[in-house]
Parts: sequence; structure tokens; C-alpha cells
Amino acid sequence: MSSDNTERFKKPLPKVNDLVHGILTNDLTILSKAITLIESTKPEHQKIANAVIEKCLGKKTETLRIGITGVPGVGKSTFIERFGKMLTKKGKKVAVLTVDPTSSKSKGSILGDKTRMQELISDPNAFIRPSPSGDSLGGVARKTRESIVLLETAGYNVIIIETVGVGQSETAVHDMVDFFLLLKLAGAGDELQGIKRGIMEMADAIAINKADGDNIKQAKQAETEFKRALHLFPPKDNGWVPQVIRCSAIKNRGLEIIWAMMENHFAQTKSSGHFNDNRRQQNKSWLLQYMEHILKMDFTKNSKVSKLLPVLTNEVMDGKISPFRAAEDIMLAYKSS
Amino acid sequence: MSSDNTERFKKPLPKVNDLVHGILTNDLTILSKAITLIESTKPEHQKIANAVIEKCLGKKTETLRIGITGVPGVGKSTFIERFGKMLTKKGKKVAVLTVDPTSSKSKGSILGDKTRMQELISDPNAFIRPSPSGDSLGGVARKTRESIVLLETAGYNVIIIETVGVGQSETAVHDMVDFFLLLKLAGAGDELQGIKRGIMEMADAIAINKADGDNIKQAKQAETEFKRALHLFPPKDNGWVPQVIRCSAIKNRGLEIIWAMMENHFAQTKSSGHFNDNRRQQNKSWLLQYMEHILKMDFTKNSKVSKLLPVLTNEVMDGKISPFRAAEDIMLAYKSS
Repeated sequence: MSSDNTERFKKPLPKVNDLVHGILTNDLTILSKAITLIESTKPEHQKIANAVIEKCLGKKTETLRIGITGVPGVGKSTFIERFGKMLTKKGKKVAVLTVDPTSSKSKGSILGDKTRMQELISDPNAFIRPSPSGDSLGGVARKTRESIVLLETAGYNVIIIETVGVGQSETAVHDMVDFFLLLKLAGAGDELQGIKRGIMEMADAIAINKADGDNIKQAKQAETEFKRALHLFPPKDNGWVPQVIRCSAIKNRGLEIIWAMMENHFAQTKSSGHFNDNRRQQNKSWLLQYMEHILKMDFTKNSKVSKLLPVLTNEVMDGKISPFRAAEDIMLAYKSS
Repeated sequence: MSSDNTERFKKPLPKVNDLVHGILTNDLTILSKAITLIESTKPEHQKIANAVIEKCLGKKTETLRIGITGVPGVGKSTFIERFGKMLTKKGKKVAVLTVDPTSSKSKGSILGDKTRMQELISDPNAFIRPSPSGDSLGGVARKTRESIVLLETAGYNVIIIETVGVGQSETAVHDMVDFFLLLKLAGAGDELQGIKRGIMEMADAIAINKADGDNIKQAKQAETEFKRALHLFPPKDNGWVPQVIRCSAIKNRGLEIIWAMMENHFAQTKSSGHFNDNRRQQNKSWLLQYMEHILKMDFTKNSKVSKLLPVLTNEVMDGKISPFRAAEDIMLAYKSS
């Protein structure tokens, strides 16, 4: 996606100050353009994007970041659309981003379908952006973090990060949000089966969606089961007790309760200092991840390394030299350039 | 463990040539000393160890490397002891190593109990070495790979790598062996529950242990279930069809069949070239892992980096500077030194 989109940047490239000004005035065209620069793999685009983010980080805003996950079929799109509409009616400005590392490979992208969230897309107080393409989850996650900074600077004060509940992307999303919501479905066989323990453990709340019509009884049963299951986990460091709530996004039921619960969570963690601590730790891990990324990039792109590595790899594979000798020779070449 | 053991190296340190000579003549004291040097974290010890491994890599020997995993209670110790004794009776020289990244933290080390494998320990054609301590699985795995080289040079031609079936260590062990055996138990509830799909997928064979007495019927049932489950996986690249075999290590039943199956696997993969291809790929990943390890070490031990990193981490946590700016400043400091 980014390679197609970035073709539209004719020389001269957009100026950092123009982009920052456009973002601050919530110019949607410029905001989209800046995010496209973030998603680009071209070094000249990344340089501008980093400078823009740098300036945006200086603008402090009060925002809430909410992660939402759930397996395909749980009703994530409808939930986010209705939840988002409810929030814009309350005067919030809502941005929706997606972390879906599979989207570049398969056609099953959870936001690939452009008919999704039509109502929210046309809402002037909402901004929806599909998953950036990327080779790795790390790359996608980094681009999402960077996009959050721009969106918050543009005035969006509730950022929803959606992800599919099938891979390791949950951990990445959990590491960039203030609240992590797991959507579940009642009445789809053994409810607890197939839930990864790790995802349950990360959740600040479980919302049992589609709790309507014939499903109500099963949803109540699932609620009891999940509450019991959540008790098996050790308490969270911030003192928050994960909640289980039934809802029906399509019938607009339970959404107010979920929002009230989130507000309660934010109030509690802000007054205890955990809200801020969590963001500080997230900044730290952002730095360390980015640090490792540029160290590896610098190493693999080094001209001496890229010449020597394939040659010595072959010799190691043939058993002619040891991995240590090869690795040390490559390190020496790297350090001498 | 290594820190205690390495205390016994008085200056002057052992000489590389003396160590290599001792290993080639299978001097057990020197072999153990060399492995202790591998496990040491001291740079002067690592330097000697690397030089020794380098020389040992030049000595080509025909060996077989077998990984064995299974959850605690499955009877790994008894299985390895009986299987090892069977092999030494056939004239093989058997070495047993353990990859257990939990052993340094918990007292539950799978080889911590010194009464384990008493019979094999006293066998002059067997060598048993518990898991090295280490901060990370990567570190433990690296030390194990290095120890394999020394043991093979010393004349051990069947290397058994044992690991607990509860973590990510299976992947590390799978990446250093020619054959990967999963030990299972029949009649312990739903047999397929709790097996990680990834571990099943890696297995070249599943041995259902303790198939004796009242367990025989359940073991047969489990055999049917596992065979069915294995059919769900795509075929292996090397054409090998994973086997399911019942055994009772304590009664010496089924062990000959398991060994015959392994010999069949080795013959098949050697004639097709997959045996050698697999070792070549393992050498490559050994290089890349070691490469990444020394790159990160060089970076974090760099004096400018270690001064700047904590300062800038604090500034990033406080939101004073962006992660990019901080990371790039640290990279600049690293590159300028």
C-alpha cells in the first residue's frame, strides 16, 4: 500500500513545517499525507516523518488510547462503529487505527473491506485509517505508534487501536494503549476453549458481544464463566480488577456501561499515577525497540557487511569456518567502516 | 553454576592446544573443564573456548544428534537412561546435554537431581552434563551448541539433547538436532489437550511412554489419537512421515523399535541429502544468532552508549525528547567511538 501511495509525492517533497501546521489545524488531506510518509519505506520520507513526529511530540494533549481485539466474526467493526458514534455524540474526536500484520500478505485484511464502518467514516469527528503494510509486526507496530502521535496532535482525543485476535499483534497493541478490551462471543461452543491465556491476562475487560435475542441466556452463562476464569489470574499491578460486561453493538446495548467502566478505569489509574507510569514505560519500550531496529538496519545496510556476510555464511554452511570466526570477522568489518 | 565452577581456574589459564589435545584423547577432566569455559561469562574464558571450538570444528566426525522433549512426569530421565544404555551396548558413545533455561532460576531443574541417571553416569561410554546457567534461552542454546562440538570431537557419536516440554526451548533444541522425539503419556486425561501445536509439528516421532500394565489399553487409544492428529499437519520438507510408537522405558519395551525408526530416518535423509541440508541450515542460523548476539553486546557495552542510554531513556520517559531523536543520538555516539 505505502509504495503505491507514496508515488503521489512529486518533488519537491512536502515541508516539515507545512505538515505540522496542517496537522495542528486538522487538515485531513495533510494528516493523511503525513501518515502516508510514516508508512513509506523510503529514507527521504522517513526523515521528514521523524521530524514531523518530533515536533508533534512537543504538543501535549490529554488523550485516551483504547485497544480492541477479538477473533474474526466477533463483530469488531460494528462494535467500533457504534462505540465510536456514541463517543463523537459525547463531543469526543475519535481516531481508529488497525494493527494487522497479515494484511499485506492476505486479502483477509480486517479493514480491507471499504464498506466497513461507513457511518463512522462519514462522521466529521472521526478518522479511520487501515493497517499499514509492513514486513514485520515490529514495523507495523512502530508505524502505528507514530501515527498515534500525529492524530493526537490533530486533536483526536480517543484513539482506538483495533487488532485481530489471532496472532502476536495483541501484545504489540497492549503495549501502546491505556485500556485493552477483549471482545468475545457467547454460545459458540466451549467459550473458554481457544482463548489464549496471554490475551485473557492482558485484558482490562471482556465484552461479550451479540448478547441479544436467543443469545441472551448463553451470554449470561459466558459472563459467569469468564468472571470465574479472570479470578484465576494474579491481580494487576495497577489494582484494576478486570470486568466482564455483556453487550450488543448492533442493538446499541451495553456500550454506555462499557464507556462508564473505561472512564472509571482512567480516573482510578490517573489518580494513582499508574496511567502516567504506564505511558512512561511504553515510551521506554518504544525507544528500545526503535534503537534495536536502527542498529540492525545500520548493520545490515553497511556495505562491508553486506559484501562479507553472504560469503562467510556459505563458508559456515560448508563447515569451512566456525560461526564465531565468521561473526567476529563481520563485526570487525562493520566496526572498521 | 558457571561462576562457581570457573573459580577453580587459577592463573595461568589452560592453553588452547592442551585443551584440544585432551578433548581429542577423551580426557574427561579436560573435556569437562573445556565445557566449563564455554559456560563461563568471563571474556578471557570465552576467548579460549572459542579458539578451542574453532580447532574442534576442523575435525569431521559422523554423529547423530537427537532432541528429546516431554512435560515433567513423562519419564524423560528413565527413558534417556535406558535408551542411552541400549546404545552404549551397541558400541555407541553417548553424550547427554540439557537445555533448560529455567534451571538457573528455579530449583526444579530437570537435571539438578544428582541421583538421576545413575546407571548411565557410571557408564564409561556415556557423558552427562546438566544445563548451563544463563540469563536467556539464547545464551543457554548457544552454549549447548558449542558443547556439542567438543563432545563430538571427543568421540561421542550420539548426542542426546534433553529439554522440558513447557517453554520455547523446544524450538531451540529442534534447531540443533537431526531428529526430534516427543515423549507423551497415555491415560492422563484428554491426551491431545495441552499439547502445543508447534511442538507436535516439530516432532519426527511421538513415543507414548509408560505403555505397560493397566496403561496398555489407554496407550493404544492414545496412539490412534496421535496418529490422527499428526495427519492434520502438512508433510515435512524432507518427506519423513512422523511416527507414533508405544514404549515402556522402565520395562525396556519399544526402545529397539524407536532406535530402528531413527536409523531408518537417518538413512533416508542422508541418502536424499536432507540430513546434510538440515545441518547446513542449522550452521547458518547459528551464525546469524551469534552475529546478533555480539552486535548487541558490542553496542550495550560501548562506553558512550552505556553513559548516554540511561540519560536519554529518562528524557524519553518524561516526554522531553522523542524516541527517534534519542535512538539516533545514541547511534551517533556508538558509531563515533
